[in-house]
Amino acid sequence: MASRTAHPNHQLISSEDVEGTNVYDMKGSKIGDIDHLMIDKISGRVTYAVMSFGGFIGLGHSHYPIPWAALKYDNKLSGYVTGITEQQLKDAPAFSDDSWSDRNWETQTYKHYNATPYWM
Amino acid sequence: MASRTAHPNHQLISSEDVEGTNVYDMKGSKIGDIDHLMIDKISGRVTYAVMSFGGFIGLGHSHYPIPWAALKYDNKLSGYVTGITEQQLKDAPAFSDDSWSDRNWETQTYKHYNATPYWM
Repeated sequence: MASRTAHPNHQLISSEDVEGTNVYDMKGSKIGDIDHLMIDKISGRVTYAVMSFGGFIGLGHSHYPIPWAALKYDNKLSGYVTGITEQQLKDAPAFSDDSWSDRNWETQTYKHYNATPYWM
Repeated sequence: MASRTAHPNHQLISSEDVEGTNVYDMKGSKIGDIDHLMIDKISGRVTYAVMSFGGFIGLGHSHYPIPWAALKYDNKLSGYVTGITEQQLKDAPAFSDDSWSDRNWETQTYKHYNATPYWM
């Protein structure tokens, strides 16, 4: 968009609007959307997008936490693009509510998705 | 909390839960709450908390964007503490929906609240 050149910082979005933003695969097909974000209360960094995968058949769960670094915003699509595959989701480290405070789980998850840990 | 020592990373919060988190002044009195966050879509940084100030009499608006760096999370209060005063809010740079893409407004606002710009 031309306006993005004129306003290079036009890239702020409300947390309420991120919830529901589409996520696409590398071919540009929608694979799901962002249900909500996990935020580091202190640093103010987004650490995970918890995604809803309505379109992927055969997944064991309805929601999966994805490292933020595995998503890339695409202005043309007005959504995020990821290289994450269905098989990666199926093979992802098991997840529970306790995982958010489990650095071992975090380390495994970021490694699983080949993402650079946010705490490094 | 002792558990925070055992789980140093127990500081992740859902974006849905940040919306509604209380904000306190330096004396520990509640002055408002966080309505929503503004997030940099690309970097995943929280840039502003848009606060609702029900308790502050005489403010011209119901919501004010506050630089994220002007808030500090307090585990004991389970909320954010800020040194921002009512007078600062009254004197804040005028705000519109276009402000999110206006680096001049952003610069003035961060300066007004003595906060370090997130884009530096």
